Amino acid sequence: MLRKGVRLSRISHEMRSWGVDGVLFTGLENIRYLTGFTGSSGALLVTGQDALFLTDSRYKVQAHEEVKGCRILCYRSLIEGITEQVVIAGIERVGFEGGEVSYDNFVRFSERLERCTFVSLSRELERIRSIKERREIGCIKRAIDLANSGFALAAERIAPGIAEKDIASMIEEEVRAGGADGIAFDILVASGERAALPHGKASDKVIEKGDFVIVDMGVSLGGYNSDETRTFVVGKPSARQKRIYQIVKEGHDKAIDAVKPGAKASDIDAVARGAIRRRKMGKYFGHGTGHGVGIAIHEAPTISPSSRDLLEEGMVFTVEPGVYIPGWGGVRIEDMVLVTELGCDVLTTGSKELTVL
Amino acid sequence: MLRKGVRLSRISHEMRSWGVDGVLFTGLENIRYLTGFTGSSGALLVTGQDALFLTDSRYKVQAHEEVKGCRILCYRSLIEGITEQVVIAGIERVGFEGGEVSYDNFVRFSERLERCTFVSLSRELERIRSIKERREIGCIKRAIDLANSGFALAAERIAPGIAEKDIASMIEEEVRAGGADGIAFDILVASGERAALPHGKASDKVIEKGDFVIVDMGVSLGGYNSDETRTFVVGKPSARQKRIYQIVKEGHDKAIDAVKPGAKASDIDAVARGAIRRRKMGKYFGHGTGHGVGIAIHEAPTISPSSRDLLEEGMVFTVEPGVYIPGWGGVRIEDMVLVTELGCDVLTTGSKELTVL
Repeated sequence: MLRKGVRLSRISHEMRSWGVDGVLFTGLENIRYLTGFTGSSGALLVTGQDALFLTDSRYKVQAHEEVKGCRILCYRSLIEGITEQVVIAGIERVGFEGGEVSYDNFVRFSERLERCTFVSLSRELERIRSIKERREIGCIKRAIDLANSGFALAAERIAPGIAEKDIASMIEEEVRAGGADGIAFDILVASGERAALPHGKASDKVIEKGDFVIVDMGVSLGGYNSDETRTFVVGKPSARQKRIYQIVKEGHDKAIDAVKPGAKASDIDAVARGAIRRRKMGKYFGHGTGHGVGIAIHEAPTISPSSRDLLEEGMVFTVEPGVYIPGWGGVRIEDMVLVTELGCDVLTTGSKELTVL
Repeated sequence: MLRKGVRLSRISHEMRSWGVDGVLFTGLENIRYLTGFTGSSGALLVTGQDALFLTDSRYKVQAHEEVKGCRILCYRSLIEGITEQVVIAGIERVGFEGGEVSYDNFVRFSERLERCTFVSLSRELERIRSIKERREIGCIKRAIDLANSGFALAAERIAPGIAEKDIASMIEEEVRAGGADGIAFDILVASGERAALPHGKASDKVIEKGDFVIVDMGVSLGGYNSDETRTFVVGKPSARQKRIYQIVKEGHDKAIDAVKPGAKASDIDAVARGAIRRRKMGKYFGHGTGHGVGIAIHEAPTISPSSRDLLEEGMVFTVEPGVYIPGWGGVRIEDMVLVTELGCDVLTTGSKELTVL
């Protein structure tokens, strides 16, 4: 019998409490977490006794190199390959990632496995990665170190006359040269009025004196990610700019102060949102306060008004309130924090004061 | 009443033949195609009369800048926002992208819209982008031009002693410096035995004399992508290397010769596969022969044994047979072609002969 390792064994163990006798994983992040596989096509079927990794012929060699603790099989077709193995394993109640499986694939599975009951375990399975091990935290910290060099370069190079896109390219080259595997998403550089776009991609817009410049970047290293945002101002900030920045910073700092094991994620959101609302800026803060970061750039826990997550020691997530005023500009301050026994460590280093360039 | 433009009007027109009175789009590629929106969160609801674009507050400003031919609404929650509008529009049969909507979201929609019938129109809606307009072909050609400079640099820099990862970084810098918006996927550089990994990510492995080196890259420009692969050999190729390369090239060339409007996509696959099988290499060619490329790096048509697609003038797809021998290495030759009135244009330029470096 194969030694499944701690993570896979935990799934085998917990599936009873989830009311299933097998769990099908099709989301690549959980598959990577549980098996080590880094390719882009595969599935994992875990039962009480066994763990079976399935992939197609393109990944056969790679699977044998990477995958630990599982038997490995190649399929011609994902759907047929999986259904065959569910039958062979005699699974009656199959847990699956309902947020990862498309409606069409669900229909294909259930037509071929009429006797099986499918149980969406999204919430349970989203959470298996949320508490980070020491090694994972180490990876995230190294990604943050690399991001720091990117932010330092941004602070050096942002100036009137340069295009947002060029800043984004320079940052990306810098972090790659530093050893990053890549970037987790297109680096956001949004200046002037464009800083009112919370997810404004770096454009051809040229940075001008007086602009707020939001730089949001994620660095990938060893399968893990960072995700942080800084807002710079080009030249002397106006009174309004200083005020808006302070409002966001207050929400940000208060939310971080509230982080501790046992706290409700929705309460952390409420702290940030409340601080911004009290300054009459609530309507300009439309997104959630944060999200877990790890193998995925967005994962559990969710820090938002509707979240039902409870914070636990070892969780890593962002705290990123913002204020976005259409036609004027915006500010976001995004740190990564690690929940500790008594509160949290702010993984993001460096000053959170408004950086004047 | 809003002018919906040709693409949206086509949806309104065709939905009758699909047996629905409204179509919900949640896939970002189709949303971009139909509305122009480039953000990462939104939905589109098209009825016979109306087109409604929904997004969250982060994208409000961006939506008003980008989205054409639709009314624009912001929601707090995607699911509630959409269900509310389906009710207001009085839609009874809702077509949707069953391959894009997760099982969990499907359940959320159907619980809230008990009176509606949901009809998965995956096949119909995957195909709306498959025939490219002149402007789209122009974008793809420009992406290919940029990729050419990347391949030229690869040919110049690949040499014994350099790591795969460094080649990938150089290529990426080159195409970005040339004006690319980005790369469509991590550039694959797989050398020596690693060339047997059809999707081998560029690694720390150092390139050696005698290696086959597979370079697979996609360049993104103006919302469109290229996707091409070249296989180089470092130093004088062995007789076996020459033979394997010729086998792949024969499959590749014959498949391209067979492309014309009305041909079955599965027949194009069969031509490539047959040529490789006749040389006893069939078992080393495990993936499909090609896929459409456009706004998505993989889209309709699918060129594979099980495809039901028929080729039509204006389709753009890859032809990319390969032979991968575990423990030895592999070859892939991937061109992009455009189906024309009488056959096809090979969009990929430059020689397909084995390039000896």
